[in-house]
Amino acid sequence: MEKAGKAERLIYITNILTQNPMKVFNLSFFCEKLNCAKSTLSEDIDLISKVFDATGQGRLETISGAAGGVYYIPIMRKEDEIEFLHFLKNELQNPERIVSGGFVYINDIVFSPEIIKKAAKIFLRLFLEKEIDYIATVEAKGIALASYVAQYFNKPLVVARSGSKFTEGSTVNISYISGTTGKIETMTMAKKAIKRGSKVLFIDDFMRGGGTVRGMKDLLSEFDSTLVGVGVLIATKDKKSIDIDYKSLLILEKLDAENKKIEFSINRDVIS
Amino acid sequence: MEKAGKAERLIYITNILTQNPMKVFNLSFFCEKLNCAKSTLSEDIDLISKVFDATGQGRLETISGAAGGVYYIPIMRKEDEIEFLHFLKNELQNPERIVSGGFVYINDIVFSPEIIKKAAKIFLRLFLEKEIDYIATVEAKGIALASYVAQYFNKPLVVARSGSKFTEGSTVNISYISGTTGKIETMTMAKKAIKRGSKVLFIDDFMRGGGTVRGMKDLLSEFDSTLVGVGVLIATKDKKSIDIDYKSLLILEKLDAENKKIEFSINRDVIS
Repeated sequence: MEKAGKAERLIYITNILTQNPMKVFNLSFFCEKLNCAKSTLSEDIDLISKVFDATGQGRLETISGAAGGVYYIPIMRKEDEIEFLHFLKNELQNPERIVSGGFVYINDIVFSPEIIKKAAKIFLRLFLEKEIDYIATVEAKGIALASYVAQYFNKPLVVARSGSKFTEGSTVNISYISGTTGKIETMTMAKKAIKRGSKVLFIDDFMRGGGTVRGMKDLLSEFDSTLVGVGVLIATKDKKSIDIDYKSLLILEKLDAENKKIEFSINRDVIS
Repeated sequence: MEKAGKAERLIYITNILTQNPMKVFNLSFFCEKLNCAKSTLSEDIDLISKVFDATGQGRLETISGAAGGVYYIPIMRKEDEIEFLHFLKNELQNPERIVSGGFVYINDIVFSPEIIKKAAKIFLRLFLEKEIDYIATVEAKGIALASYVAQYFNKPLVVARSGSKFTEGSTVNISYISGTTGKIETMTMAKKAIKRGSKVLFIDDFMRGGGTVRGMKDLLSEFDSTLVGVGVLIATKDKKSIDIDYKSLLILEKLDAENKKIEFSINRDVIS
């Protein structure tokens, strides 16, 4: 680009940063692209940062020093998070969601880009301080959510499959008891999926007793890797037999299939 | 916000539009938020549009008239698409991807946010002129890709499951022959997943003979709905027994497991 004016610079920088969450851009990248001085750029970034703060559009973080850089953290304002969680709670409390067998139909929710983008932003805030190498999930209902979490953390997503699939080469398989089905299930991951010694954040749509989490933990130990956090959209009130800190956005308080009553609450730990 | 300056307006508008692809924002929305006149806003939008064009960051489309609005189309420049497809081709041609059974390991690719975001942008361009109500895929490897396509089209994603799952209430099931496994598979979708009379774009990671596409078409007909397009990341050269226009980004030209040779080509139809 020829020497860009202030307006052009602001538009360009805003877009590049927000389209690449958590990716650090060196100031010289922008200086070259926009043909401007670092001091000019610093002023631009200050201004963008202020507008983001004032309008609740996430946050810019700058890294000072010779190799200074800037990156975008797509988190929401607390009041927007709370508004979203109330919206989600009301959506879920629709009695028509109760399906035979006492299950809750949530497919439209877990695959709605608009909804899972916001949920993913909350998980980013909740686990922002953790050192994370991979986002992991188990097929299939958590995949879309986990892919947004991975995008926001700027980390690769790994998906464990249920049962052994023959298109993945050498795999590591473990068995676990699923709290949803009560059956022994198999979880599979390709041997090349995760580098040894990695730190992994597990994301899923639903947690009952924590069987899947334990399965993932066992699976990761086969890669000499560690589960450092668990984030789920909805958890039941069942006792969780897991020894790791987990965050659920909502809690399923009551499901009375006979009388078509279903109640959720917002997890106070998440918004406090 | 108090009366915003030009710089603040540009930053705010750029971010809101790009974070919400294909969503039409009425000009009065911005006028109220930013406390400015429509004429001022039109100038701002012109400027943003010009910078996007000049830097290949997608396109703004304006709708004129009293209810005038503006929306963002996140498509790439042709040269960026070609560069990306070459990158993808080279990534895939790594002989280490050949796994036992003559399959190709692509999990890291189909779940990499960076890669599937770009692929999704190409599918947006390819099917931009179509009227589309839903994006559909079949679990599990196409879900992340399809979720970005859905985000870019600003349409809901529906995911057909393999086998009958008991957490979805009433379902519609159809059987089809999978070209990958050669077996009869079942595809399931909840009855409430799709409104009757919808137009659907099918997205998947891999297509061999088109069995899954035919399955999806049959499944959609149970919803009085129509398949209007098919986009897949990779197609083999096998004859496709489907009667619908499909676009694959890459073509698997040759897979010689014994000699560890694997070759892809870029689909010329996509970049011509």
